[in-house]
Amino acid sequence: MKILQSSTVLVCTRRLCLAAILLELAWCPQFVSSQTATVPQDRLAEVNPFIGTGPEGHTFPGATLPFGMVQLSPDTQIRAFKQSYKWASGYRYEDSTILGFSHTHFSGSGHSDLGDFLVQPISGEVRLEPGDVEKPLSGYGSRFSHKQEHAEPGYYSVDLQDYGVHAELTATARVGVHRYSFPSGKPEHLLMDLRSSIYNYAGKVLWSRLRIREDGTVTGMRETRGWAPGRQLYFAMRFSQPLMRHSLYDREPLAVEYKGFKTPGTTPEDTQAMEGRGLVAVFDFTPTSSPLIVKVALSSVSEEGAVANMDAEVPGFDFDAVHAAAKSTWALKLGVLDISAGEDVRKNLYTALYHAMMSPNLSMDVDGSYRGPDNQVHRAKGFHFVSNLSLWDTYRAEQPLMTLLEPQERTSDLVNSMLASQNYSPFGILPIWQEQGIETWCMIGYHAVPEIADAYMKGIRGFDADLALKAMVTSATYAPYGSLGDYMKLGYVPVDHDDEAASKTMEYAFDDWTISRMASATKNKEVAAEFGHRAANWRNNFNVKDGFVEPRLANGEYRVPFDPAKAGAGSGFTEGNAWQYSWYQPQDVQGLINLLGGKQKLVSKLDAMFDAKIDTKDYAAVEDISGMIGQYIHGNEPSHHLAYLYDYAGEPLRTQERLRNIVQTQYRPAPDGLVGNDDLGQMSAWLIFTSLGFYPVAPGSNEYVIGRPFVDEATMHLPNGKSFHVVATGMSDQNAYVTSLTLNGKPLTRMYLRHEELMAGGELRFVMGPKAEAKWSREHLELPFSISKQ
Amino acid sequence: MKILQSSTVLVCTRRLCLAAILLELAWCPQFVSSQTATVPQDRLAEVNPFIGTGPEGHTFPGATLPFGMVQLSPDTQIRAFKQSYKWASGYRYEDSTILGFSHTHFSGSGHSDLGDFLVQPISGEVRLEPGDVEKPLSGYGSRFSHKQEHAEPGYYSVDLQDYGVHAELTATARVGVHRYSFPSGKPEHLLMDLRSSIYNYAGKVLWSRLRIREDGTVTGMRETRGWAPGRQLYFAMRFSQPLMRHSLYDREPLAVEYKGFKTPGTTPEDTQAMEGRGLVAVFDFTPTSSPLIVKVALSSVSEEGAVANMDAEVPGFDFDAVHAAAKSTWALKLGVLDISAGEDVRKNLYTALYHAMMSPNLSMDVDGSYRGPDNQVHRAKGFHFVSNLSLWDTYRAEQPLMTLLEPQERTSDLVNSMLASQNYSPFGILPIWQEQGIETWCMIGYHAVPEIADAYMKGIRGFDADLALKAMVTSATYAPYGSLGDYMKLGYVPVDHDDEAASKTMEYAFDDWTISRMASATKNKEVAAEFGHRAANWRNNFNVKDGFVEPRLANGEYRVPFDPAKAGAGSGFTEGNAWQYSWYQPQDVQGLINLLGGKQKLVSKLDAMFDAKIDTKDYAAVEDISGMIGQYIHGNEPSHHLAYLYDYAGEPLRTQERLRNIVQTQYRPAPDGLVGNDDLGQMSAWLIFTSLGFYPVAPGSNEYVIGRPFVDEATMHLPNGKSFHVVATGMSDQNAYVTSLTLNGKPLTRMYLRHEELMAGGELRFVMGPKAEAKWSREHLELPFSISKQ
Repeated sequence: MKILQSSTVLVCTRRLCLAAILLELAWCPQFVSSQTATVPQDRLAEVNPFIGTGPEGHTFPGATLPFGMVQLSPDTQIRAFKQSYKWASGYRYEDSTILGFSHTHFSGSGHSDLGDFLVQPISGEVRLEPGDVEKPLSGYGSRFSHKQEHAEPGYYSVDLQDYGVHAELTATARVGVHRYSFPSGKPEHLLMDLRSSIYNYAGKVLWSRLRIREDGTVTGMRETRGWAPGRQLYFAMRFSQPLMRHSLYDREPLAVEYKGFKTPGTTPEDTQAMEGRGLVAVFDFTPTSSPLIVKVALSSVSEEGAVANMDAEVPGFDFDAVHAAAKSTWALKLGVLDISAGEDVRKNLYTALYHAMMSPNLSMDVDGSYRGPDNQVHRAKGFHFVSNLSLWDTYRAEQPLMTLLEPQERTSDLVNSMLASQNYSPFGILPIWQEQGIETWCMIGYHAVPEIADAYMKGIRGFDADLALKAMVTSATYAPYGSLGDYMKLGYVPVDHDDEAASKTMEYAFDDWTISRMASATKNKEVAAEFGHRAANWRNNFNVKDGFVEPRLANGEYRVPFDPAKAGAGSGFTEGNAWQYSWYQPQDVQGLINLLGGKQKLVSKLDAMFDAKIDTKDYAAVEDISGMIGQYIHGNEPSHHLAYLYDYAGEPLRTQERLRNIVQTQYRPAPDGLVGNDDLGQMSAWLIFTSLGFYPVAPGSNEYVIGRPFVDEATMHLPNGKSFHVVATGMSDQNAYVTSLTLNGKPLTRMYLRHEELMAGGELRFVMGPKAEAKWSREHLELPFSISKQ
Repeated sequence: MKILQSSTVLVCTRRLCLAAILLELAWCPQFVSSQTATVPQDRLAEVNPFIGTGPEGHTFPGATLPFGMVQLSPDTQIRAFKQSYKWASGYRYEDSTILGFSHTHFSGSGHSDLGDFLVQPISGEVRLEPGDVEKPLSGYGSRFSHKQEHAEPGYYSVDLQDYGVHAELTATARVGVHRYSFPSGKPEHLLMDLRSSIYNYAGKVLWSRLRIREDGTVTGMRETRGWAPGRQLYFAMRFSQPLMRHSLYDREPLAVEYKGFKTPGTTPEDTQAMEGRGLVAVFDFTPTSSPLIVKVALSSVSEEGAVANMDAEVPGFDFDAVHAAAKSTWALKLGVLDISAGEDVRKNLYTALYHAMMSPNLSMDVDGSYRGPDNQVHRAKGFHFVSNLSLWDTYRAEQPLMTLLEPQERTSDLVNSMLASQNYSPFGILPIWQEQGIETWCMIGYHAVPEIADAYMKGIRGFDADLALKAMVTSATYAPYGSLGDYMKLGYVPVDHDDEAASKTMEYAFDDWTISRMASATKNKEVAAEFGHRAANWRNNFNVKDGFVEPRLANGEYRVPFDPAKAGAGSGFTEGNAWQYSWYQPQDVQGLINLLGGKQKLVSKLDAMFDAKIDTKDYAAVEDISGMIGQYIHGNEPSHHLAYLYDYAGEPLRTQERLRNIVQTQYRPAPDGLVGNDDLGQMSAWLIFTSLGFYPVAPGSNEYVIGRPFVDEATMHLPNGKSFHVVATGMSDQNAYVTSLTLNGKPLTRMYLRHEELMAGGELRFVMGPKAEAKWSREHLELPFSISKQ
C-alpha cells in the first residue's frame, strides 16, 4: 500500500492553470511540466495504454497529454469505410503493419474519424501508396512487433522493421513530437500522406494544401467530410535537420484540364506548394548520426495558428524535455487517485484514469482562436474551448468523475465551450456529439443539458447560469431536432415517425428532469414546473401490460408485435432494446416500481435481464452491443446504471453480486481488456466509481449510489485540497458483501453518499464479509431521492 | 459637342476616397453616392452594357460598381466544362433563358469561373434543377426577351416571362441588391442554387454551407475548384419581407451513410442549416403588394465578414437609393473623359471606359480582412486589397489607362495588393493571374512586374519601392515558374522543354527591361545591369535566317520545320504564332530592325502580317484567336501594339491607315461589337487610347506613341485636377491622316508624347487631312526611346 500525498502539488497545479487562463498563453498542462521533483511518477508504470486496443475498446496506444489537442499514435490499417468501426482509433492490437503516425485520434469512440496528418519515416525505397498490409513492402507501411513496442502516458515507441527505424513519439497539448532513429548510412525520408484517414472513403478529403516555407517550415491543411462535415485542420511541421529535398505529389487521378492551376513547377521537386485532394509529400534528409526530430503543431483555425502554437509550446527540438514534461504532467494528473489493490486492479484503474483524462480535447489556439459549430473562427475569452464531446456517453459517469478529480475550471471550460457552441450553432442548440468544434449529430438526447445541470448542482459557477439555463431550454425545445416536435406534442416520440423513438423518450425525460433541477436551484419556477412535468414523459412509453418501455405509434397505440429482445434498426431503440432502456428513469424509480407493481417486480425484471439466455450472434450486427451478461450489455452505456437499481428495490446484495460479476468479467489489464468502446472515458469512469464503491446513477442529483468497493484502499485528492479516503477491510472473493459502512467513523444508513460529503473530504469505510454476515446490506437504509422523495 | 467640366467633382471624389481609406470603412465608391446634384449623368446613356455580350467579348450586362466586389448579373446557360469558354461571363446575348442572377462575374475573361450564389425568383411551381434551356419550364430557368431587358451602369432589369416577375438588380461595392416584382396573387419564392457555377463540372463544388439565422439572415459559403483552386466565398442575404418558410435540399446523390451528419430535421422545412456539395434552398414569402428586395453581401473571409459588409453598405432596403448611388458613382467615374464624336464612337468609347473600370476588383471586407494566395486570412493595413488580376492583358494598356484616369491611390492599392500577395504567396512570387486572392497560373510572363515599374516610373509612390523591386526580382528569378530556370541558364526558353517557349522568351525579356528601368530609377545599378542584359534575350529566339522569332531547342538549334502561321498547341507560342510574337520587343525596336536588316524590312514584315491571306477556319480551334486582319489578331493581346510599329520604321501613315482599319472593323456598339475577349478592360483600353491618338506601346517607358485620333474632341480630367484636351479638326473618312500636330500650340516633332506632358494638362491638337497633305506624318520626327536612344 502506498498512499501518496500530492495535494500540495495539485493546488500548485491549479494556480498555474489559472495563470495560464489569465494569460491565455497555453493549455494548462504545459505549465506544470517542470514540477518533476515532487511528482509521484511510479504510478505511470501502472498504466498500460494497450488496454482496450484489442477487439472492442477502440483506444489508441500513442502519445497525448491529458485533454490535449494532439493524440500522436500509430495507424495500422487501410481503414476503409466499411472498417471504420473496427479501426476507430486507427490501431488494432492484432495488426502487424504500421502505416505511419498520425496526430489526432478519438479514445474509444464507437464511430470514427481523424487520423490527421499521417507521417511515416522511411529508409530506402519510398513507395507513395500505403500498400496491402497483407503484402510486406507493397507500400509505405512497415511491419512491427509488439516485442519492440512500448507505450506509457505521453510516450510511445516502436521499431519499424521494414525500415530499421526506431520511432518515438511524445506530445505537448498542441504539438506532436517525433524522434526517428534511422539505420546508419541509409537514406532518410519522411513521407506525409494527406489522404490517409480514419473512416476513409473516396471523396472524404474535400481539399488539402501543402506548402514548404522559405524557413523550411512545412504548413498545410486538410478539409474532410468524415464523421464531422467540412472539418478543417491545419498543421505546421519543422525538422531538426535541414531539408535536403522535398517532392510533392497529387495522386488523385483527374483530367489534366482541372490541374492547370496546380503549380509552377514541372517536377515534384520543383514544387514549393500544392493543393488538391490526393496530396503526398516526401521529405529527404542527409543521413547524420543524430536522429531526426519532427515537430507537428495543429490548429483548427489556420496555418499561422499552427505555427504560433508550435512556437509557444515547442520552440526547440529537445525531444527528451518534451517527453519529461509529458511524463510529469501525467504523473501529476494520475496523482489525484491513490489506489491500494492487487496488481490487476491497479493496472485496470490507473489505465482507466488515464483514459478518463484524455477527453474532452483542447480545440483552441494559443491566442484563444477556435473554430465553432458554424465553421467560423471565434475567439474564446476567459475560457479554453474544448471539444470532442461524446455527451451521450460522458454525462453518465465520465464528466461526474471529472467534477470530482479535476479543477472546477476544467468543467467551467467545458460548460463555457458548450455555451459558446450553442451561441454559434446554426441551430441555436447545445452540442450533441461535437468533433473539433463541428457537430456530428451522433447518438440521441441532449446530454449537454445534464452535464451543465450536474456542474451547477455541484456548485461549479464559472459560467453564466442564466445563459446556461436558457441554452438548455432552447435545446430541449428545438422542434426539428430528434423528433422533439412530436415529443413536445405527444409526450413521447412516436415510432412511426422515428425509429429510435422509445429510447429518445427515455433519455429526453431524464434530461428534462435535470433542467427542472437547475431551474429550481436558480428559482425559475416556471421552467422547473414545465420540465418537471416533462421528466415524467418516460411513462408515456411504458406499457403496463407487460412492464416494458415499448415503441408507441403516433395514434397512441403501442406497436405490435413487440419483442423486448429486438435491438437496433427497426426496434425503436438506439443501440439496445427494451431490456436495457425500460429501466432508464433514474429521476423516477418510484414511478417505475409503481407501474411495475412493486419493488419485487423490479427485481424480477432486473434478474430476468441479467440472467436471460441469449445467443450473442443475434446481436452481432448491432453496433456497440458487446459485453453481454444476459440482456445486460456492459459494453454500451444504457446498461451502466442497471446493477445499482437493485439498491432501489431494497436489494443491495444483488447490486453487489452483479457488480462483482461485471467487474470480474468485463475488465482486464490486457489489449482485449475492455468489452466495449471506452467511449472517451465512460467505460473507464464506470470502473473507477464502481471500484471506489459508489456510482452517480442520476447525474444532477448530487447523489452517489452505494455499490461495493473493489480496492483495498483509495484516496481521491480533491481539487479543493481535501482528500476522500475509501477503505475496504476484509475483502476477498468470499467476503464480497458490505457488512458495515461508516462515513468518518459514523454508520452510514443511506444507500447513497452526498456530493458535499465527498467534497468535504473524509473516510468511507467498508467492512466486507460473506453474504450471511452482510448486516449493513440488510438494514433499512435511506434510499436515493428518486424513490424516497417522490 | 458637350464638354462637361467635372473636375471639381472629381477632386471631391478623391478627398472622399482618402477619407474612406483612412477610416478603412468601405470601398471608396460608397462615399460619393450622395453627390448626385453636380454629376453629369447623361453620359450614362452612352454606355451600352450589352456591347461584348455576343460572340467573343465575354462581357456581362449586370449591375456592378466600378472595381466592385459584386458583379450581379444574369446567367443564361448550363455552362458545363466544355462550354466554359463561351459562357465565361455567364451570359450570352443569343440565349433566351435566364437561369438566375449570380453575384460574381469576370468582365471579358478568356477562361471562366465565378457565378457565385445564383438566385432565381419564382412564382408558381418550384423546380429544383436548372432544366434544359431548350425545353421551357423543364427547370427553374425562365425565358426572357431582349425587348423587356434593360442595362445601364449599376442597374439591370429584365422580365422573367415564365414567372411574370420583373427583376431589377443594382449593387454597392460588396452588396448585390435585387428587386423582384411578382405578379399579384401568385406565390413568391426565391431559389438559391449553390451548385450553379460558371466553368461547371461534377466535383467543382468542394463544399458549401447554408444557414438561416434567428434574425432571418441567410448566410453561407461555398468552396470551389474552378479556375482558382480551393476558392472560398461567403455570403449573407436578407429579405425585405419576412421569410414565411424555407426549405433546404442536398441534391447530391450520395450514400445515406455519409449523410448521418446532415441536419437535425427530417424534412427540408425543418432544417435550419445544411452543408454538402449539392445544396439548393427555396425561400417562400407571403405575397404582398410590395416587391421583394433581396440583399446579398459577399466576403472572401467569413460569414460574419459578409454580414458586416452588408451592415456597412446597405443597412436598409431602399433599392432606389442604392440604384441612385450606383448611377452617381458611375456618372462620376465616366466623367473623367469628355468625348465629342459621332454617336457610335461615343457609345463605343463610354462603354469601353465602363468596361475598363470594372477590374481589378475589391477583394476585402470592410474591416480590411482578405484572403490571400496562401488561402489564409490577412488584414490589409493602409490599402485596399484588390484582385482579379488579368495581368497578361492589363499591363499593356488597361493599367496604364488607369494611371491616367484614376486617383494614384487606386494604383497604389493594386501594387500594395500585389506586394502583399507576393509576401503571402507559397512560392514567394508576384501574382500571375489572381482570382479573388487565389493564384490560377493562367497565361505566361510575370507581368505584375511591368505594372509596378510603370506605376513607379510615373511617379506613383504609395508603396515601398525597395520592397517592390525585390519582389520583382524574386519573381523574375524563381526557377520553377514557367521554365525560368532554363531561361536564366540559356537566355531563352527551349521549346523541347516548354511548348510555349518562344512567347515566354519574348515576354520575359520585356518584363526584364521594366525591372532594369525601375532599378535604374532607384539607383540599383547591379539589378539594372543584370536585367538590362536579360532584356535583350528576345534576340536569342530570333532567327535572322528568315526574320522570325522561332522555337529553339535546348541544344541551341532552331526547331525544324518552322511555320510562322502555326499557332496554339505545338507551335511554341501562347495563343498566337510567330506572326504576332516576332515583333514583341517594344524595349528594343532598333534591335529588331537591325536583325531584320533595316526599317523597310520591318515594314515589309508588318505588311505581310496585316495583308496575309488566311483561312480563319485554320485557327478556329485556337482559343482567343479572333478578330483577324491577315495574321494580325485584334481579338488577342499580343497584336495590340503592332499597328504602332510602323511609326518606328518612319511610316506613321501606315500606322494611321492600319488603325483606321482596325477601329472600323473591330469595334461597334452592339452585342457582337467586340471581336475578342475584353480581358478585364484591355480591349477597351486599347480603343480609348487609340481613339485619343496615342498608345502606351512600352509600359514603363512613360511614352505614348502617336497614332491618330478617332474623336473630334476629348478631355481627360486628370486626377491631379488638370485636364488634357485632344482636338482633331477636319477629320473625315478621307481626311484620315495627321497633317499637323501641336501640343499647347507648339508643333510636336516627336512620334510620342511624354507622360509628364499629359499630366501637366494642356491641348494636343491634330489637324487631319487627306494622305497627300499629311505633312506632319512625313516630317523627320523624333522616334520613341527604343529606337532613337538604343
